[in-house]
Amino acid sequence: EIIAAIEAFFQEKEHSKPLQGKNVLITAGPTREPVDPVRYFTNYSSGKMGYAIAKAAVALGANVTLVSGPTALTPPPGVTFLPVESTAEMLEAVLTRYDNQDVVVKAAAVADYKPKRVLSQKMKKKQDEWTVELEKTTDILAELGKRKQHQLLVGFAAETQDVEHYAKDKLERKNLDMIVANNVAQEGSGFSVDTNEIIIYKKDGSKQAFPLLAKEKVAYEILEVAMDLMGR
Amino acid sequence: EIIAAIEAFFQEKEHSKPLQGKNVLITAGPTREPVDPVRYFTNYSSGKMGYAIAKAAVALGANVTLVSGPTALTPPPGVTFLPVESTAEMLEAVLTRYDNQDVVVKAAAVADYKPKRVLSQKMKKKQDEWTVELEKTTDILAELGKRKQHQLLVGFAAETQDVEHYAKDKLERKNLDMIVANNVAQEGSGFSVDTNEIIIYKKDGSKQAFPLLAKEKVAYEILEVAMDLMGR
Repeated sequence: EIIAAIEAFFQEKEHSKPLQGKNVLITAGPTREPVDPVRYFTNYSSGKMGYAIAKAAVALGANVTLVSGPTALTPPPGVTFLPVESTAEMLEAVLTRYDNQDVVVKAAAVADYKPKRVLSQKMKKKQDEWTVELEKTTDILAELGKRKQHQLLVGFAAETQDVEHYAKDKLERKNLDMIVANNVAQEGSGFSVDTNEIIIYKKDGSKQAFPLLAKEKVAYEILEVAMDLMGR
Repeated sequence: EIIAAIEAFFQEKEHSKPLQGKNVLITAGPTREPVDPVRYFTNYSSGKMGYAIAKAAVALGANVTLVSGPTALTPPPGVTFLPVESTAEMLEAVLTRYDNQDVVVKAAAVADYKPKRVLSQKMKKKQDEWTVELEKTTDILAELGKRKQHQLLVGFAAETQDVEHYAKDKLERKNLDMIVANNVAQEGSGFSVDTNEIIIYKKDGSKQAFPLLAKEKVAYEILEVAMDLMGR
């Protein structure tokens, strides 16, 4: 009886910690690409979705690494926190830790263009017009897709139109296992707000739609689908 | 004796609240200029200097209005807080309140260029290069200088080189009463850090240099100089 009770206890515990022993890396927030020493190019990502996933992954028992661009948020207790600024810094932080990960969730809204030339002195306001030439940054998610071995790779598609089309295209092109799509132009979804309405597209062609939920709840739904794909 | 004590009390009180009855408007933080629904141009201003001045002005007895771009800071208790995003929004918030102000401190690091065209849909990452054409925003401080009547107008010059030259030029060109100059490329000065090393240039041609100080202390020094110019 005692042994049965102990077994039940550990089964219960294991059930509530389904990511125990798993290494989960999450990227979050925006990145910043400087134009000169005072100005930069960035995006409206608040980091809330990525931080919520990091918190949920800790609660589910994972060893969580959170690679984050600048946000106003406090890292959840229990994560290994790696702050970065630029896309290049985020790429390096992720690649050097990629081999050890079981799950990588790329929730960051990486700056995908950066100024071609970064001025070393502040641009003076003399000229009426200023043309900034941008070039693509390295696509972190595509890079992870190329180098994927045992990892489960989760991407995001924040779109303002044709969400399904772009999401499915990205899923395949970047060799992802699942992609979390949302329409950021929609009320209550996307940047800064505390809720999100998502559809998850999976590699097998299936999709799963969710109602408008708090980002904390969305975080668990995303990890549920990921665990399902991992056979947990 | 009782009357003398009461008088002393009120003198003491008046001495510690030298800005009692004065209206002080402070702008703080960066502004954001969107390129499309997800991307924007901005700068490294944290808002710390402006918020510190607002807090000090409240402590000195002023009626304080804080017009702030997006920051991670909490507005100091007692201020009238007006959050804005773009330079155009900040301009409007300041101009509609300008007539009533005794002192205006422009601590905000306003985006001085904005994209000529704001895309209504997210720019897709198809093209390798992207040229963004920028044009000048309305110069809020210059506008305030032009419309100045009774107000004391305080500007800032955050430079990375030739600080004195640029600061004096700006003081005159924008019709300011004083300008607070600092070299943001210098260790311990400028954006994000909690300290600042400033030089104040006044309309009469005189200048006052200060050592590296906490931004809270710098805030009082700036208001001291302003009160001195107001004959308080």
